[in-house]
Amino acid sequence: MSRYFSKSLSALKPYVPGEQPQDMKYVKLNTNESPFPPSKAAMQYAEEHLRALNLYPDPECVELRREFAKLSRVDTDQVLAANGSDEALYFAFKAFADQEHPLVFPDITYGCYPVFAGALGIPYTEIPLKEDFTIDTADYSGTGMTIVIANPNAPTGIALSLYEIDALVKAHPDDVVIVDEAYVDFGGTSCIPLTKKYDNLLVVQTFSKSRSMAGARLGFAIGSRELIRDLNTVRNSFNPYNINNMTMAVGLGVLKNQIYTDANCLKIRETRSYTEAALKELGFEILNSKANFIFARTDRIGGGELYRRLKAKGVLIRHFEKERISDYNRITIGTKEQMDVLLEKIREIFAEEEA
Amino acid sequence: MSRYFSKSLSALKPYVPGEQPQDMKYVKLNTNESPFPPSKAAMQYAEEHLRALNLYPDPECVELRREFAKLSRVDTDQVLAANGSDEALYFAFKAFADQEHPLVFPDITYGCYPVFAGALGIPYTEIPLKEDFTIDTADYSGTGMTIVIANPNAPTGIALSLYEIDALVKAHPDDVVIVDEAYVDFGGTSCIPLTKKYDNLLVVQTFSKSRSMAGARLGFAIGSRELIRDLNTVRNSFNPYNINNMTMAVGLGVLKNQIYTDANCLKIRETRSYTEAALKELGFEILNSKANFIFARTDRIGGGELYRRLKAKGVLIRHFEKERISDYNRITIGTKEQMDVLLEKIREIFAEEEA
Repeated sequence: MSRYFSKSLSALKPYVPGEQPQDMKYVKLNTNESPFPPSKAAMQYAEEHLRALNLYPDPECVELRREFAKLSRVDTDQVLAANGSDEALYFAFKAFADQEHPLVFPDITYGCYPVFAGALGIPYTEIPLKEDFTIDTADYSGTGMTIVIANPNAPTGIALSLYEIDALVKAHPDDVVIVDEAYVDFGGTSCIPLTKKYDNLLVVQTFSKSRSMAGARLGFAIGSRELIRDLNTVRNSFNPYNINNMTMAVGLGVLKNQIYTDANCLKIRETRSYTEAALKELGFEILNSKANFIFARTDRIGGGELYRRLKAKGVLIRHFEKERISDYNRITIGTKEQMDVLLEKIREIFAEEEA
Repeated sequence: MSRYFSKSLSALKPYVPGEQPQDMKYVKLNTNESPFPPSKAAMQYAEEHLRALNLYPDPECVELRREFAKLSRVDTDQVLAANGSDEALYFAFKAFADQEHPLVFPDITYGCYPVFAGALGIPYTEIPLKEDFTIDTADYSGTGMTIVIANPNAPTGIALSLYEIDALVKAHPDDVVIVDEAYVDFGGTSCIPLTKKYDNLLVVQTFSKSRSMAGARLGFAIGSRELIRDLNTVRNSFNPYNINNMTMAVGLGVLKNQIYTDANCLKIRETRSYTEAALKELGFEILNSKANFIFARTDRIGGGELYRRLKAKGVLIRHFEKERISDYNRITIGTKEQMDVLLEKIREIFAEEEA
């Protein structure tokens, strides 16, 4: 770092996004993207409704928020649009946590939580997942902190039930509970309806996964009017024009073609079952995934070794060096064809091992 | 605010963007946008080079940064891309200022500086512009703070010379000097070449003005490798995928069609001269503008009154309630046709006054 870099940030460890090596064409199963592009209908809608690029975007994002609210059966002023759900998350951390009211989240979860907390100077506590990688919400009782739960969790894919989330939010009336539903469309149950019942619940969703818009950066936060008003105060103090006209137009197009999204989610779930069955046959243990990825290990080869061998064969999956999970790999569910390549390469590696 | 809102933010005053009323079709001269859309060639390039929207953007923005660096005659690793120059500015404030090293900027300048400082919990000092609204760089001597100067300044339009910036940066080797060149393409002189000479200079530019991309959100920071590395640490701790694929593609298209940008800047300067001459004839005093707006007052009608009367007639200009400048209005330079409407409406208002 330069000698001008703020001392308050000297310990900052930035997030490391999944690699995007350019040396060859990979089957990319390492960042949980959708294998399907946005629908033609969505793109055509976007083209026809694109506001002039030389003019600033609508800072209120009214149309986009209205359409998302309609689909989610909440009011428009219960919705904030963000430049990716990452932005919604750090606005939420900034708004609802500080030195006096720290953050708490599982030890194994989305890697951006500790990074955002570090960048914002917010202390945080990590609560270990159970031995079986599930979250026991009772562990969060009495912490008096702002709770962040990814549901389904990443990289495990395991989901909490709506009942468990309801009880958690109810048990902490003085703390905001942030539920990150990045992967909810692949088999989880959204707790958005609970935002009508509790004023301390904030739900965050992304359009990067089920909505095929990772490259367009769009996410949402949903909560009570008051929480959303607070988030807007933060947003308007950092980036009042955070959603550009193109993302706004594509987002609207995608929302108006929800049937395509639903069909894609179904395909991913079918391909997930197919992949799970095939991997189990090869001797893998797989956690119970409700997401568009699976978290798998096997006694036949170490996690890091499998990751490296697959990369050499042109298939990227995600390996985390973290001790508790270093034996595992997170594998995105792509198309059936992509998963067949993965399975074929794993069989090759096992054959090489035995040779 | 909700009872969950961080106490540390209770005094936060968000930025108020220029209004976008929807009740009628306005001649919009209030937010310094370009009146010209991006060129057809740029848009065609973007369409042909758009990376799939279901895949995450290149977090390194390599191509875009390389092209911008080439045009600016610096190295690629001297350049950071941001989701609007606003984002570059708050990353820079976060990286190079803190409780121990506050910010200093003029009392009359871009309204986001105090807002970002407030949101980031960074103390700041405002140094009054001279009586004639110029900046005296000597006023910043010995402050020991991170200096932020908009050059040309807004809303005055007045520019410092390259010589003055050079001397300022040289005189403060222990402080980062941030020069915000949002409006430099309309007659100022960029100090980007000085980033080769000084390691404490950070230049910020936007594509929202001369590059016709306000609706696409793109900005850049240019400095020494070390400063840019620090900014990347901050960026990767907040928003590693900050530039979406569409903005990336349009930005590249615009950079590859620089002749169009140059021609537009020339048109704006001609229209600025034309508007200045006409307004002076109507009894206006106008500050010496090197930007795509002018800052004007007249004894014939108050600043707020002129703003309101023009709005009623369908022309939006920007009025600031701040005491020192409440007599003035900031008027964006649009097309000649738009400026003729402005002039006609002002003549109407003056005629009504005399009737």
